[in-house]
Amino acid sequence: MSSPGLVVALSGGIGGAKLVLGLSRVLPPEDLLVVANTGDDFEHLGLSISPDIDTVAYTLSGLANPELGWGRRDETWSFMETLGALGGETWFRLGDRDLALHVERTRRLRAGDSLTAITADVCARLGIACRVVPMSDDPVRTRVRSETGWIDFQDYFVRQQCAPVVRELAFAGAEAARPQPALMAALSDPRLAAVVICPSNPFISVEPILAIPGVRAALLACAAPVIGVSPIIGGRAVKGPTAKMLAELGLEVSAASVAWRYGDLLDGYIVDHADADAPAQGPRVFAAETLMTTLADREALARAVLDAAATLRE
Amino acid sequence: MSSPGLVVALSGGIGGAKLVLGLSRVLPPEDLLVVANTGDDFEHLGLSISPDIDTVAYTLSGLANPELGWGRRDETWSFMETLGALGGETWFRLGDRDLALHVERTRRLRAGDSLTAITADVCARLGIACRVVPMSDDPVRTRVRSETGWIDFQDYFVRQQCAPVVRELAFAGAEAARPQPALMAALSDPRLAAVVICPSNPFISVEPILAIPGVRAALLACAAPVIGVSPIIGGRAVKGPTAKMLAELGLEVSAASVAWRYGDLLDGYIVDHADADAPAQGPRVFAAETLMTTLADREALARAVLDAAATLRE
Repeated sequence: MSSPGLVVALSGGIGGAKLVLGLSRVLPPEDLLVVANTGDDFEHLGLSISPDIDTVAYTLSGLANPELGWGRRDETWSFMETLGALGGETWFRLGDRDLALHVERTRRLRAGDSLTAITADVCARLGIACRVVPMSDDPVRTRVRSETGWIDFQDYFVRQQCAPVVRELAFAGAEAARPQPALMAALSDPRLAAVVICPSNPFISVEPILAIPGVRAALLACAAPVIGVSPIIGGRAVKGPTAKMLAELGLEVSAASVAWRYGDLLDGYIVDHADADAPAQGPRVFAAETLMTTLADREALARAVLDAAATLRE
Repeated sequence: MSSPGLVVALSGGIGGAKLVLGLSRVLPPEDLLVVANTGDDFEHLGLSISPDIDTVAYTLSGLANPELGWGRRDETWSFMETLGALGGETWFRLGDRDLALHVERTRRLRAGDSLTAITADVCARLGIACRVVPMSDDPVRTRVRSETGWIDFQDYFVRQQCAPVVRELAFAGAEAARPQPALMAALSDPRLAAVVICPSNPFISVEPILAIPGVRAALLACAAPVIGVSPIIGGRAVKGPTAKMLAELGLEVSAASVAWRYGDLLDGYIVDHADADAPAQGPRVFAAETLMTTLADREALARAVLDAAATLRE
């Protein structure tokens, strides 16, 4: 497949990373810019942890742990086991190898390096050829309001395993955050062929990116089609709390509901064949096989997204 | 053996920890206070590392690595291996389990806890019954002047493996450091039976403790005998750069030379049978088997030290 031009992918963790891997296998590396959500980032045990960047990087480098769905394959757990024995906090599990990335990132951030520069170096070390960038070098922290008040995202997501009922979300720091320069440059690049909103959770993976001043306007203004991929298949989320959150926020649990949430941002929307009775209004809908089980599935969905973009560019 | 009363041991790392283990096996736990050197402490990879405290704690808890002479037994190295692959610094080797202690200590220090409180909690978690305290809660950092200028201690000790010729030592922060309150209380305790200066390197393990304002005077003033144990056996150091440093600082490489260095601080001095042709003047000399190979050796030397103290108290 010849390259259609520059493709920007906005991604959260697992689901987004799967499509990003597919895109990386059908595009020349210089034509793929992956923008990772950093709203999940947090400081834990004195370490700066960037879960979505890391999931994308581990997935692209073939290091992702297929059983856990997070962290690295061939991991060891001596650190966590010993930390527990010392009375430390163990609710956020960090493998020994994964830890090296957090320690090195934390050290470099303290030394004044940007998250963008650190991410680029880590990706180069892991042999990743395409560009992976954080949505911003400024801290943005997703917060969740449940019935008992506001809590930090990882408290909700990992410690409480998404049990609290979500009433509202906020992205602390977003209003003052500067958007990733590489993203803004790409959105006005004449070679831009498509922006892909990966099948990630809209509320906690994509909307933190959209909350950064200038990003939504640049997406609306960009000449290339913006294509969303539904994270909902047959009324269910493949993984994570997307369906639960839709319901708790008073929205229908459907692929159409996610498109409605993105509003006029989308030019095209990829839904699963199971959801092809899609919204009559709004973006142009394309049906595809969206469940990504195998590597071939990831590549096929990536091609379907690029085909949809090509159709919309015609 | 009935307890002679309270015993204070001033210790550095390996050699000191061996005698401390012996003392812990012949004294009731409430009668042993171990004061560890923190001049070797340093900040590395964003972590606060206290090598001598940890060597003492790992030795007392039976967790010490007998092959390496530092760190923990049953260690894994995934973190270090991965850090190297990411381009991080690997000259100071940190095992995955050992790392848990550094991360937890660093987190608690940042949260405002004292090194004394953290050390007490760690020791309790490791099942250590006697008290282990840092020489001070204030940072003291040993610096080494070689022919190329001043360098940090761990740079000299680990990175350059003691290769530089030592011209001078300094203990940055010592003049402003407050001595460990438990040490000062013990030195004026009427139950004090002995102060043991363990067979550690005088220049880098013991003198940092003595450099803290008030400590040397309190040792000179205390009613109980102060007993040194020679780290030199037959003109050689058992481990580490003690002999090399003695020579580089223009001193004779001998057990007597170390006693001379401590000056009027010592009431008694334990030398190996091989060095029984000890100094004619200065402290009273006792000969013993000072090479601690087995656990029985450690206990026997501990008993010899306590016997010497008892003789001096008569």
